[in-house]
Amino acid sequence: MAEAVETMDGWYCLHDLRKIDWKKWKKTSKEEREEAIQEYQAMLEKWDNIREAREGSHALYTVMGQKADIILMILRPTMDELGEIELQFNKSKIAEYMIPSYSYVSVVELSKYMAKDEDNPEDNPGVRARLTPKLPDWDYICFYPMDKRREGFENWYSLSFDERRRLMYEHSFTGRKYAGRVKQIITGSMGFDDWEWSVTLFAKDVLDLKKIVYEMRFDEVSAKYGEFGPFYVGSILPNDKLPSYFSI
Amino acid sequence: MAEAVETMDGWYCLHDLRKIDWKKWKKTSKEEREEAIQEYQAMLEKWDNIREAREGSHALYTVMGQKADIILMILRPTMDELGEIELQFNKSKIAEYMIPSYSYVSVVELSKYMAKDEDNPEDNPGVRARLTPKLPDWDYICFYPMDKRREGFENWYSLSFDERRRLMYEHSFTGRKYAGRVKQIITGSMGFDDWEWSVTLFAKDVLDLKKIVYEMRFDEVSAKYGEFGPFYVGSILPNDKLPSYFSI
Amino acid sequence: MAEAVETMDGWYCLHDLRKIDWKKWKKTSKEEREEAIQEYQAMLEKWDNIREAREGSHALYTVMGQKADIILMILRPTMDELGEIELQFNKSKIAEYMIPSYSYVSVVELSKYMAKDEDNPEDNPGVRARLTPKLPDWDYICFYPMDKRREGFENWYSLSFDERRRLMYEHSFTGRKYAGRVKQIITGSMGFDDWEWSVTLFAKDVLDLKKIVYEMRFDEVSAKYGEFGPFYVGSILPNDKLPSYFSI
Amino acid sequence: MAEAVETMDGWYCLHDLRKIDWKKWKKTSKEEREEAIQEYQAMLEKWDNIREAREGSHALYTVMGQKADIILMILRPTMDELGEIELQFNKSKIAEYMIPSYSYVSVVELSKYMAKDEDNPEDNPGVRARLTPKLPDWDYICFYPMDKRREGFENWYSLSFDERRRLMYEHSFTGRKYAGRVKQIITGSMGFDDWEWSVTLFAKDVLDLKKIVYEMRFDEVSAKYGEFGPFYVGSILPNDKLPSYFSI
Amino acid sequence: MAEAVETMDGWYCLHDLRKIDWKKWKKTSKEEREEAIQEYQAMLEKWDNIREAREGSHALYTVMGQKADIILMILRPTMDELGEIELQFNKSKIAEYMIPSYSYVSVVELSKYMAKDEDNPEDNPGVRARLTPKLPDWDYICFYPMDKRREGFENWYSLSFDERRRLMYEHSFTGRKYAGRVKQIITGSMGFDDWEWSVTLFAKDVLDLKKIVYEMRFDEVSAKYGEFGPFYVGSILPNDKLPSYFSI
Repeated sequence: MAEAVETMDGWYCLHDLRKIDWKKWKKTSKEEREEAIQEYQAMLEKWDNIREAREGSHALYTVMGQKADIILMILRPTMDELGEIELQFNKSKIAEYMIPSYSYVSVVELSKYMAKDEDNPEDNPGVRARLTPKLPDWDYICFYPMDKRREGFENWYSLSFDERRRLMYEHSFTGRKYAGRVKQIITGSMGFDDWEWSVTLFAKDVLDLKKIVYEMRFDEVSAKYGEFGPFYVGSILPNDKLPSYFSI
Repeated sequence: MAEAVETMDGWYCLHDLRKIDWKKWKKTSKEEREEAIQEYQAMLEKWDNIREAREGSHALYTVMGQKADIILMILRPTMDELGEIELQFNKSKIAEYMIPSYSYVSVVELSKYMAKDEDNPEDNPGVRARLTPKLPDWDYICFYPMDKRREGFENWYSLSFDERRRLMYEHSFTGRKYAGRVKQIITGSMGFDDWEWSVTLFAKDVLDLKKIVYEMRFDEVSAKYGEFGPFYVGSILPNDKLPSYFSI
Repeated sequence: MAEAVETMDGWYCLHDLRKIDWKKWKKTSKEEREEAIQEYQAMLEKWDNIREAREGSHALYTVMGQKADIILMILRPTMDELGEIELQFNKSKIAEYMIPSYSYVSVVELSKYMAKDEDNPEDNPGVRARLTPKLPDWDYICFYPMDKRREGFENWYSLSFDERRRLMYEHSFTGRKYAGRVKQIITGSMGFDDWEWSVTLFAKDVLDLKKIVYEMRFDEVSAKYGEFGPFYVGSILPNDKLPSYFSI
Repeated sequence: MAEAVETMDGWYCLHDLRKIDWKKWKKTSKEEREEAIQEYQAMLEKWDNIREAREGSHALYTVMGQKADIILMILRPTMDELGEIELQFNKSKIAEYMIPSYSYVSVVELSKYMAKDEDNPEDNPGVRARLTPKLPDWDYICFYPMDKRREGFENWYSLSFDERRRLMYEHSFTGRKYAGRVKQIITGSMGFDDWEWSVTLFAKDVLDLKKIVYEMRFDEVSAKYGEFGPFYVGSILPNDKLPSYFSI
Repeated sequence: MAEAVETMDGWYCLHDLRKIDWKKWKKTSKEEREEAIQEYQAMLEKWDNIREAREGSHALYTVMGQKADIILMILRPTMDELGEIELQFNKSKIAEYMIPSYSYVSVVELSKYMAKDEDNPEDNPGVRARLTPKLPDWDYICFYPMDKRREGFENWYSLSFDERRRLMYEHSFTGRKYAGRVKQIITGSMGFDDWEWSVTLFAKDVLDLKKIVYEMRFDEVSAKYGEFGPFYVGSILPNDKLPSYFSI
């Protein structure tokens, strides 16, 4: 029996992706459209205040291609708060013009593969900050869920702790090359959603998203043990751009 | 030919997951909405009485993310009673505002891997209670179906009884660590639905759901033989919270 | 090249599963609903007469869970008759309130693995009866399609005739244990539908459906070579229960 | 690097499968229905003339089960003609009452595994005829797409030419047994659609479709290298039966 | 750890495939249809000007079969421009009569497997031209996404650089045979979409699309490491053919 490495868990996370029902939106009166946008913006501003108070964080991006139009990534200290937000959004006016296309439920996670011999690494301020992150307002986002493979000789969960640590350590070098260019949030989702983890990357240059995913694929841990779900890429949608995004 | 371990089977079980059609719900008159909720609550109260009489049990939770909004898990002594309930629910007013998203048909099951040398373990009161369980009213639920793998050298159904017992025994230790924190209901569904078993976990702390699923994945039986379907996680929805949940 | 065992083929078979569109049904006038049910019942009575005349057989069951509400299994001497029935049903009033969810096209099949040295086993009256079966009116049904595996070392179609016969022979013992409790109809569907066979089980006790599928999974032929599609389980719906089933 | 065998390619081929929207059809006025059928029949008669002139061929069959109601298989000397036909059909009245369910784009193909040492086998009149076939008006059709496997030790595209020829040669014997009973059209679709080939079988006795597919599965080339897509089976729908097929 | 080969990246690329909603289109007034087409043509002419200015490129083709009716492939120097175009198209009149069916987000990519010892191959004018290509106006298109396999002994990302170069070099010979007949655009999509690359082929003779895909399948790199997604094939749709394409 392989030994499970402990994880440290932080804020709960919901990725919510929706398509805009442009046909319905265009048929709606100007008054109703304005009302819907204003209510949407008010909701976003309330979340901005929560972010300022460091009681959560969120990011709103458009999504390229037909798989979705909008991705909201939202972090809160409790699952209940996420549930409240999802319910409130589902009841909002703007949601009447959106079609759910994908969602993901998880919690910000750090593994202890590299943990130093601290008694409670969770008390380390740097660790705390990474578990309750302020999402950057960088121009581009990339989101995908993933599993570690369990097939024949390539079974992550049968590897020894030391072997897994070696592979993760090697993997971390690739990430470090992109320091300052790509910010990465790992969330764990076993028991919460269909894959084991999700990865959210933020970049200033969209090409860096491709470069880091490509380069990491050659890391042994990805090459042999990574199973990847759908990938979503998009551009930041600041609150003040909402009216022009939705203008028709 | 490997020897099949006998199972003990208890109450029949239906998991019924639905999305709320908020767009339609919001277009409905206040009177119709109130009528729909009252009828729904009356149905739930009738089921409460059945639970009090120990003639069945059920649990109603909201579901995080877009895969579903509501999960009802319901247990009854006969499959016919479940069929009646499903039919009645499908004809109810509230069902007009819901969209089916997933369901699962099974029966509460205990395996005899660890059975002591009793003549009829089913007559053991502790066993009886586990076969006809009162579902807890803990705050969080996690539900997922699963198979045991049958591929090449990793074929559960070709293992000897002793090897299977060893693996299940080891696995049971992980579960016991969470005693008092996570309550687990295993149901069998061969011949009834698309996977072989379903697992429903209840927890007071939602993070324990992730922790137990994560830790168990390293157990040899999961690492090598577990194939997992979709995961659903949610929060309890008590009867008296229904009006506020559905309020618009 | 492995030698194909010959098969004996009997009546053609259509499994037709549909969901009830309760929302639409409830919006319809009482008169139209009654008309639809009467026409449906007349169709079923006509099929009853054909069954009495031993010119075909059929069975109508409700289905548990959201995958379907109704399953019709219907047998006829020719494929053309099945096509006529499907067309007639699609044009019927009741079909306007149903949504197709799954179907399966096949023919009752017996393999000759165990055939005695008869010149024409098809002429054997017992064999004839099994090829043109009168479906039982037992309380429960279980239906699923399946393939025999063709992967690496587990390739059914590369096994010798003798090895396949040995495996099927062993397998038949499990079935015999359930004699009188479970009645099994095997249909072949290569060239007709997406899987290679379908299995339909009838039982008086619904739990026997689970028990036989579970026990058979440990038979070497299932453990190593069985690939299973979706499973449907349901309860008999006699003609005279139709009005109450559809009453709202 | 294995040597690719050359292929000979003939007429382009479109399989177009649709469901009838009976609910919508029944709501339409008798006049509109008649107009739609007449326009449909005129289109079919025009195609009949093309068939008579040997400038193409087509076949119209109903499909058993819920996967589709109608399959049109149509052959033309150029892809552009197929595109024109598809566009014209999509704009026709009858298409308003049909729901696309599957399609397949390919070209009639003969491989040169068995080619004699001719300079230009395409000039051989027998070969020409097989590349530009007149589809038979036999009572039953079976259509399915397929791939050759590329997995581990079972990789068709890594086999030597001689080994592939040996397997195809052996395979051809099974086909020959059904001469006069089953007519087979092979089309290639690499670069054109999602599978590598499609197979269309015509038979006078529907059971022969099952028998040939079943028997061929034991051929080494199918047992080890065949990967099969969905199967569709149906009955011929002559032009003069259209009114009764569509009558309500 | 295998060494990742560097890539050179050029213009960003969106493939956007849609079905025409002919039923809705036919119900629309002639005036509205003309307005929609004119707006669509104006959009295409604007893109033509951008192509002339060498600030982007695009291609519009019809698609054979039911998977889509129209494919737009569009290249721009930045991802933001693609996002703008997608948004503008979604808000256009013609989009109200289209149903999204598939899309793909990527960037034109050249690998450096064969790169000569230049300091900055990106500065080579030939390389620049290939990274910012003017799409040809050839009659036929073929588009498909693909992955390199990572399974057991067939793991592209575990091969040495030299072995990968050898395989790609061999592969390039097949492509060269089709010089002047097939033009190929490779785009990379890791981090951007669900597959790792997309391939778009243009040909004057549609049969060349089949021939090149077929022949390449025997190249070791495809036979052992290629995993292919859906294939789309179509014919050019010049701006001046739009009115007749949409005429009813």
